Amino acid sequence: MSKVLVFGHQNPDTDAITSAISFAYLQKQLGVDAEAVALGPVSEETQYALDYFKVEAPRVIETAGNETNQVMLVDHNEAQQSVVDIKDLEVLAVVDHHRIANFETSNPLFYRAEPVGCTNTIILKMYKEHNIEIPAAVAGLMLSAIISDTLLFKSPTCTEQDIKAAKELSMIAKIDLDVYGLEMLKAGTNLNTKSDEQLLSMDAKSFPMGTKSVRIGQVNTVDVDDVLERQATLEAAMEAENKAEGYDLFLLVITNILDSDSVILAVGDGMDKVESAFNVKLENNTAVLPGVVSRKKQVVPQLTDAFK
Amino acid sequence: MSKVLVFGHQNPDTDAITSAISFAYLQKQLGVDAEAVALGPVSEETQYALDYFKVEAPRVIETAGNETNQVMLVDHNEAQQSVVDIKDLEVLAVVDHHRIANFETSNPLFYRAEPVGCTNTIILKMYKEHNIEIPAAVAGLMLSAIISDTLLFKSPTCTEQDIKAAKELSMIAKIDLDVYGLEMLKAGTNLNTKSDEQLLSMDAKSFPMGTKSVRIGQVNTVDVDDVLERQATLEAAMEAENKAEGYDLFLLVITNILDSDSVILAVGDGMDKVESAFNVKLENNTAVLPGVVSRKKQVVPQLTDAFK
Repeated sequence: MSKVLVFGHQNPDTDAITSAISFAYLQKQLGVDAEAVALGPVSEETQYALDYFKVEAPRVIETAGNETNQVMLVDHNEAQQSVVDIKDLEVLAVVDHHRIANFETSNPLFYRAEPVGCTNTIILKMYKEHNIEIPAAVAGLMLSAIISDTLLFKSPTCTEQDIKAAKELSMIAKIDLDVYGLEMLKAGTNLNTKSDEQLLSMDAKSFPMGTKSVRIGQVNTVDVDDVLERQATLEAAMEAENKAEGYDLFLLVITNILDSDSVILAVGDGMDKVESAFNVKLENNTAVLPGVVSRKKQVVPQLTDAFK
Repeated sequence: MSKVLVFGHQNPDTDAITSAISFAYLQKQLGVDAEAVALGPVSEETQYALDYFKVEAPRVIETAGNETNQVMLVDHNEAQQSVVDIKDLEVLAVVDHHRIANFETSNPLFYRAEPVGCTNTIILKMYKEHNIEIPAAVAGLMLSAIISDTLLFKSPTCTEQDIKAAKELSMIAKIDLDVYGLEMLKAGTNLNTKSDEQLLSMDAKSFPMGTKSVRIGQVNTVDVDDVLERQATLEAAMEAENKAEGYDLFLLVITNILDSDSVILAVGDGMDKVESAFNVKLENNTAVLPGVVSRKKQVVPQLTDAFK
């Protein structure tokens, strides 16, 4: 077996980066020549976690085919969220916690998905099944991903398994879950230094819905108004991106991590679909979605159904 | 949670039937109101196993939506191999050992696939992970599936894990693996009582390949010539089925379970693809494929690539 590259989705969040690290480490222990890489630079939140546990950020790749023809995907499966030359590569394994779509292989593979809050919760099970010890730094990164994906257990995507896994990992990493967790989340909310384009792409993913292509970005903040002050220039940037990339609709989900609410900002075609999906009336292209913090559970399925 | 139906693919083989039984039993122990059903009548091989371990065949369903909207799939994932109303149902879980194609969900789900020889090898792991005891009769059925899918460990799809699982299950079921295994396989080779149409549909699956629809049937025998004596009427039946069902190509794989070789019989368009896929020259629509016993590993990927 040649070298195997392991990576999470484009615009990597903390789970995408750290699950590549933790899964590549596990594969190495199992004898695979695996290397964790990333499909983009790490966020400030992720950098906080990497610095805290003294781990280097994975190197960023543009394509994989120039290095290997065998890859493993973590925290995603949909082709449009993966490396650009994914169709030319053999996917040996997937570990994920999302819906399955736009994914196809010629050969049987290893695929492990569970409807839990974080990829690393599944990877922790796999360490146990293989009886492999987790280094403290890797445990700390895995824990950071669970905190990030579940917003410190407040997201509806969070399961009992995620909470149990986080507690277990915090013992291995020897850190105070709540203190560390809030500091890490706050490190990811510094949006003022970001350009509109940077803010939009921080955690954005594309989804085919019906015959349309929908882009959904999400940012965490401790002050939603702080983001909405930039609405005019954000909308212009969203419109420009729709045009350049062929998105029919761009939805930005601005999530208050302290209150666990979101405001959405929508630009493009299908505003009626947005309204029916969330049962709201858009005003000035925005609407408040009380209790909504999870794109995966509270945004994508509703919007997918509306576009059917 | 309402009732959940658990089933394997259409034209069920021993793994499709018994993995539905073993996975439904596991789910019931985990508190799910699961029932194993089948998408077609059981084969003679499967009936031999069911009789031996004194288990009733699962009832056959035509559609699932009239009973429930939640299902679990075993031993398949591709929509065209599943229940006809699969698109209207929520798939809660999949356990499988095939390629992933033509499968899409709106929501995250439980998906467990591994590149091993038999679905029940994966299900055995899940019993262990959940610490749930396997009744002797269920173990016997799981073992029967491993014997069937791996042709008593002779198929290239067979892994060390399958052999280990079979040994473990034979201890629980308290049977002699080799003696029972050959008897069960032989029970499935009684083709003389079958009409051409029955023979073709015994273990047939449809595969989209490029822009074409390819039907691939497989039969096990202890005497290939016995089947080839019926070539003329088989070809007529294959042609009729291509026309009726819109298949571009029908490939029948006749496998000698004693010699571990196959003869293929091809009817339809794309004979050149068949020749290039297997690097053979078809004579009288047939060719010998030495050492080929696995549709999944030695037929489907090669033909898929040829149709690309």
